[in-house]
Amino acid sequence: MSEPLPARRTGTPDTQQGMRRRNLSRVMHTIAADGPMSRAAAASRIGLTRAAVSTLVDELVRAGLLRELGPERPGRVGRPGSALAVSERGPAGVGAEIGVDHLAVCVVDLRGEVRARAERRVRNRGRAPEPVTADLNALVRRAVAEAEGGGLRPAGLTVAVPGLVARDNRTVVRAPNLDWHGRDLVALLGGALPVTVENEANLGALAELWLGDAEPGDFVHVSAEIGIGAAVVVDGRLLRGERGFAGEFGHVPVHPEGPPCGCGGHGCLEQYAGEEAVLRAAGIGRGEGGVELLAERAGAGESAAVAALRGAGTAMGVALAGTVNLLDPRSVVLGGALSRLAPWLLPALEEELERRVASPARGIEVSRLGPEGPLLGAAHSVVRAVLDDPAAVYADV
Amino acid sequence: MSEPLPARRTGTPDTQQGMRRRNLSRVMHTIAADGPMSRAAAASRIGLTRAAVSTLVDELVRAGLLRELGPERPGRVGRPGSALAVSERGPAGVGAEIGVDHLAVCVVDLRGEVRARAERRVRNRGRAPEPVTADLNALVRRAVAEAEGGGLRPAGLTVAVPGLVARDNRTVVRAPNLDWHGRDLVALLGGALPVTVENEANLGALAELWLGDAEPGDFVHVSAEIGIGAAVVVDGRLLRGERGFAGEFGHVPVHPEGPPCGCGGHGCLEQYAGEEAVLRAAGIGRGEGGVELLAERAGAGESAAVAALRGAGTAMGVALAGTVNLLDPRSVVLGGALSRLAPWLLPALEEELERRVASPARGIEVSRLGPEGPLLGAAHSVVRAVLDDPAAVYADV
Repeated sequence: MSEPLPARRTGTPDTQQGMRRRNLSRVMHTIAADGPMSRAAAASRIGLTRAAVSTLVDELVRAGLLRELGPERPGRVGRPGSALAVSERGPAGVGAEIGVDHLAVCVVDLRGEVRARAERRVRNRGRAPEPVTADLNALVRRAVAEAEGGGLRPAGLTVAVPGLVARDNRTVVRAPNLDWHGRDLVALLGGALPVTVENEANLGALAELWLGDAEPGDFVHVSAEIGIGAAVVVDGRLLRGERGFAGEFGHVPVHPEGPPCGCGGHGCLEQYAGEEAVLRAAGIGRGEGGVELLAERAGAGESAAVAALRGAGTAMGVALAGTVNLLDPRSVVLGGALSRLAPWLLPALEEELERRVASPARGIEVSRLGPEGPLLGAAHSVVRAVLDDPAAVYADV
Repeated sequence: MSEPLPARRTGTPDTQQGMRRRNLSRVMHTIAADGPMSRAAAASRIGLTRAAVSTLVDELVRAGLLRELGPERPGRVGRPGSALAVSERGPAGVGAEIGVDHLAVCVVDLRGEVRARAERRVRNRGRAPEPVTADLNALVRRAVAEAEGGGLRPAGLTVAVPGLVARDNRTVVRAPNLDWHGRDLVALLGGALPVTVENEANLGALAELWLGDAEPGDFVHVSAEIGIGAAVVVDGRLLRGERGFAGEFGHVPVHPEGPPCGCGGHGCLEQYAGEEAVLRAAGIGRGEGGVELLAERAGAGESAAVAALRGAGTAMGVALAGTVNLLDPRSVVLGGALSRLAPWLLPALEEELERRVASPARGIEVSRLGPEGPLLGAAHSVVRAVLDDPAAVYADV
């Protein structure tokens, strides 16, 4: 069955202006992904004439998004062209993360390099949003000043939050582990940069999409700190759901008559594989060292720790079997804090998938980004927005 | 977070030619959805100049896809324009359905009207694909001849099949209720029309998207004949999965240690809500009248029938709760043969959703299309392909 032609999805007509902006984006994406390269190489990859690409490139060089490296090294066939690279002094993305136990900020340039970073350990559980956002703003200012010292111009700030974020990308509807409900973080953060608020598991999945080993396309990204989230990526796009609440994987029923869950349901995945449930099953008390201690004990072969992680892996496998049967993703990626527990979770998890997935099962990949995913995803989401519509940062559009 | 500009998804550059073809599609879709209308009205809806739209319209009229109805009725303000309508004599879509107990074919014109129909009751369970496709071809020929008599030119044939279809849209990987495995139906059907093979639940969901009451956008469409399928529609597009196997909702685990399932798993939804399980629970034997008898008995308030449907509704509610928590769809639509059992399934189903969905639950809609969905979806998928790229049916592209 043919897919509709893409422009129909936008609802706006094709115009010369829209076409130019999309072609500017193609030039930026091509050189960012595969550069440095000559105008001729860019033209041939994109499928436009060299003259058309040259006009676009000139505009991007003038705006400081691309730079010319000078003639390509001699010895190549043909007339030497000047190689083009994405500027390391242009617009940059600022990412921030509000965690239960920490705050972090990083600045990433258009080449994808982290150019500044600031972090602070702080117990945010139960703190009001006002002091937390004030602390975060101080970190943002520090990181931005460092980046500006390196010639960068931050184009926006994306903040990763451990909770449900409304589709307005500003309101934290519910962050149970911070005890925040219905707060507009953009209003609280203020500041000079445009701010976007996003669920941390979503940003972890986007980081995997943009930076990870997973083949781009369709995958399910499961991550957990205190809660368990899953993000579904389809055709390289994150599925957000009608109200932005997609990914509540921790509340997939595993045993419908199991223990009651904070959500009002019974036997949700979180009751078997959430951090608290697993630590309890492993006999590790509150404040006793958490996931680090659990990993240590499992590594030492302690049977309670190994059994607790095996039980969590089984429950995750049951919930994932339903997900894989429903969505048939290309792959499943284990990210976030979970990824370091993978050696003990995976065998039981894969056993359940093997038993329960109607069609030949696929393996589980473990994210290389681990707990860094959400912060990197936040900064890169700003960078991607610049690559997707470069004219927006320099033209009055 | 900004979405990438849409053209980037295609991987192909914007060209004048591509732009023209997309604008032809806009004209067709606009007039098909809201026509008849004048050139001026079409131009204003699409956001192009009247001159640009007139050129596109002239091309579509010459090709026989649009026709002029003559001057609009007098009394309107301004100079009267000729109203344009989608042609009732142009290209048409042929849809076919291979069911366990029947074969059906229909022909739909560009206006969405069914113009020919042929049907045959036949027990296909266990029959080889060769005689089944031969019977189907005979029905297709009959319906096509009737449509051609009405001035239509069939542009393609889409066949709905109750089984897993590979992404090549020709191979039936597994249709357990027909006992077909790995058969290339396009090769078997042959014929003059381009053939597309598609899973029936997918086509039922597409029919709902195109013709149903569900607001277009994001929904989960659950349907069942013998098996239970669910199709996920995101941003108006059907999610097919990596291998085309998405939607195996019947194999979502409901009670992980429940009865064994044919898929190799345990306690799958199909063991509680599949047709055989429900009939068994209601005390209705094989060959005793099936779903019709069940509906009759439930309607008469017979307690075994009511309890069986209540149990099925509960199991569906558990499986759907996981799905809704994961995907946050705008709505859930009950389609297929199930839709007539909705009065007895829904109360228990909605109770489970209410208990288990982390965010305020939403209602369940019952499809008006019912068992007609897959056949209509098949024919309309051909019509949509014409509207999506009208030039493809008349130009040598």
